[in-house]
Amino acid sequence: MSWEREHIAKMEGYISGEQPEDPSVLKLNTNENPYPPAPAIEEILRRFSSEVLRQYPPPQADEFRTMAATLHGVERENIIATRGGDELLRLMITTFVDPGEMIGTTQPTYSLYPVLARIQNCPITQIPLQGDWNPPLSFSDQLNGLGTKLTFLVNPHAPSGVLLSTKQIEKIASSLDGILLLDEAYVDFADISYNAIPLVEQIDNLVILRTLSKGYSLAGLRFGYGIGPKHLIKPMIEKTRDSYNLDWISQKIARIALEEQDYANQTWLRVKQEREVLNNELERLDFSMPASQANFLLATVPQTHTAKAIYHALKQRNILVRFFDHDGLSDKLRITIGTKEQNDRLIAELSEIVEGP
Amino acid sequence: MSWEREHIAKMEGYISGEQPEDPSVLKLNTNENPYPPAPAIEEILRRFSSEVLRQYPPPQADEFRTMAATLHGVERENIIATRGGDELLRLMITTFVDPGEMIGTTQPTYSLYPVLARIQNCPITQIPLQGDWNPPLSFSDQLNGLGTKLTFLVNPHAPSGVLLSTKQIEKIASSLDGILLLDEAYVDFADISYNAIPLVEQIDNLVILRTLSKGYSLAGLRFGYGIGPKHLIKPMIEKTRDSYNLDWISQKIARIALEEQDYANQTWLRVKQEREVLNNELERLDFSMPASQANFLLATVPQTHTAKAIYHALKQRNILVRFFDHDGLSDKLRITIGTKEQNDRLIAELSEIVEGP
Repeated sequence: MSWEREHIAKMEGYISGEQPEDPSVLKLNTNENPYPPAPAIEEILRRFSSEVLRQYPPPQADEFRTMAATLHGVERENIIATRGGDELLRLMITTFVDPGEMIGTTQPTYSLYPVLARIQNCPITQIPLQGDWNPPLSFSDQLNGLGTKLTFLVNPHAPSGVLLSTKQIEKIASSLDGILLLDEAYVDFADISYNAIPLVEQIDNLVILRTLSKGYSLAGLRFGYGIGPKHLIKPMIEKTRDSYNLDWISQKIARIALEEQDYANQTWLRVKQEREVLNNELERLDFSMPASQANFLLATVPQTHTAKAIYHALKQRNILVRFFDHDGLSDKLRITIGTKEQNDRLIAELSEIVEGP
Repeated sequence: MSWEREHIAKMEGYISGEQPEDPSVLKLNTNENPYPPAPAIEEILRRFSSEVLRQYPPPQADEFRTMAATLHGVERENIIATRGGDELLRLMITTFVDPGEMIGTTQPTYSLYPVLARIQNCPITQIPLQGDWNPPLSFSDQLNGLGTKLTFLVNPHAPSGVLLSTKQIEKIASSLDGILLLDEAYVDFADISYNAIPLVEQIDNLVILRTLSKGYSLAGLRFGYGIGPKHLIKPMIEKTRDSYNLDWISQKIARIALEEQDYANQTWLRVKQEREVLNNELERLDFSMPASQANFLLATVPQTHTAKAIYHALKQRNILVRFFDHDGLSDKLRITIGTKEQNDRLIAELSEIVEGP
């Protein structure tokens, strides 16, 4: 007999991208920022007294929340601090979706959403994106027709990098009957004309997810936050969140990371510049891809090759990229934008693989 | 209208002990270890390169798990590393208990358990402890009769500090039809003759919770772990855990903390010595309490006073202790064992309060 709940026993867990320990491996597979975190963070670590760890941390991470609120021009009560974006995704389900209620998203999308739905024993409807990676005009109507309680929408989209405009987001959020969780994990690499945060004060069913994993080079810290109306943020903070979800050190580091906007902005600019170069180099090698507003490219491989073969050939040469053998993605590779040197190394190896030595 | 799930809208969240920012306040209210973490941890922080934070951490914290397995003489597959003990408690419910299924515990007990049951929309049965703070002999039978799926038992007991023997734990675990989560948050301060870990290999329904918050002076780090049979540990690691639940820094620190057993043992010994002194001093002031095997005492106040009044009088004098105005505890105070100096300060103030200046 299994002790697990019936649907847990039947489900598969989330599969993370590979995290090799060999430092000679070039990791272009999990969308980490290629530049180090702000130097001020190194300083915090040097000055942090371990004695502080003896005591429980501030349970609601209020100093961080105040900083994030100031940065985004909202109130502290509009912010929840979470253990990476993952925790916010889970809390949205725990707080607002009963088992058996419908969850919506796009097809394809971030592959964690269906796993989180399954853990809660919820069905999930994935509405196929159109050829231009935009949701169909009927997106909200279709989900409303199914009684969808919560919709996950990642913007810029993963794994394509395509950005929906603020106007499009407003339209979707205001036409959905349920709650929209807008996952902006990659927003720091998007055009600065895009800004969905003011919508939070106009629309009562919108929560925006932010993470420090990508834009702030802090994937290893596990820190994210949500921005939303108080009636959606408050129950997650006061009821469903683990009681001390964020440790002392990460609360300190996360606050400093947000303070160091100039440094972070520089890394975003460099990633955007390198993204354009890499895009062009890949096109030269007969890859094709939509214009990305994230820190990765979703490249369709030349017809002379399979994506799977190129993925393996790159891996043999100590370069990891992401290959998804499902969702109509099996002729594509998702490639994280690296530094100039890393991208040059990738292109050199790819040239040999697709054009021969 | 409320967007929250109906039972979430109705429930109250967990109330943490007060965490004042004023360093002149003597905190004897949340059972933190009064001694600092091992000096080797300060070293780790000094040497930790912030650049490591750019990348995702090891998803399953395998180095820590290996260390914990070695320490306890089990295999790595018997260990799950979690964000404090809290995360393990939540995962046990998420993985093994359907909404509506019965959860069991004692009365009184750690006040987080009923909150976690409510979040999952589960009923909870609290079996009253006897006058000696032991569960009644019928404990398992009563819970089995209600079809209890998961039972939380904290040992040493909170808030009394009373320890059940290994034999008693074996009897309860082997007679329960459901799973027993044995919460050993305070076990480091108990008699070394107590050891429930070998039971994990004999009984297929037992998971033991450990935390670094108390014994290792790391409440601010948020790190705990579970020890259990592989068929109970594996689904929590592979399916229901947030995908990167533990950051880089805490994984490093937690491993070192376990390695530094000699240092930790010294703090446990000192706490035990101070516990005896404080117990005797409190008895001298006409408080009475059961023999505690934890780092706190549950002291019934002299009949001449109310616990609430003493709590407030201490707070006015900048000393925090814990007062529970429910569960038959309203004539008692839970007092964390401090350093000799801290305990002396407490006793001096208490003497004035109960005996007059």
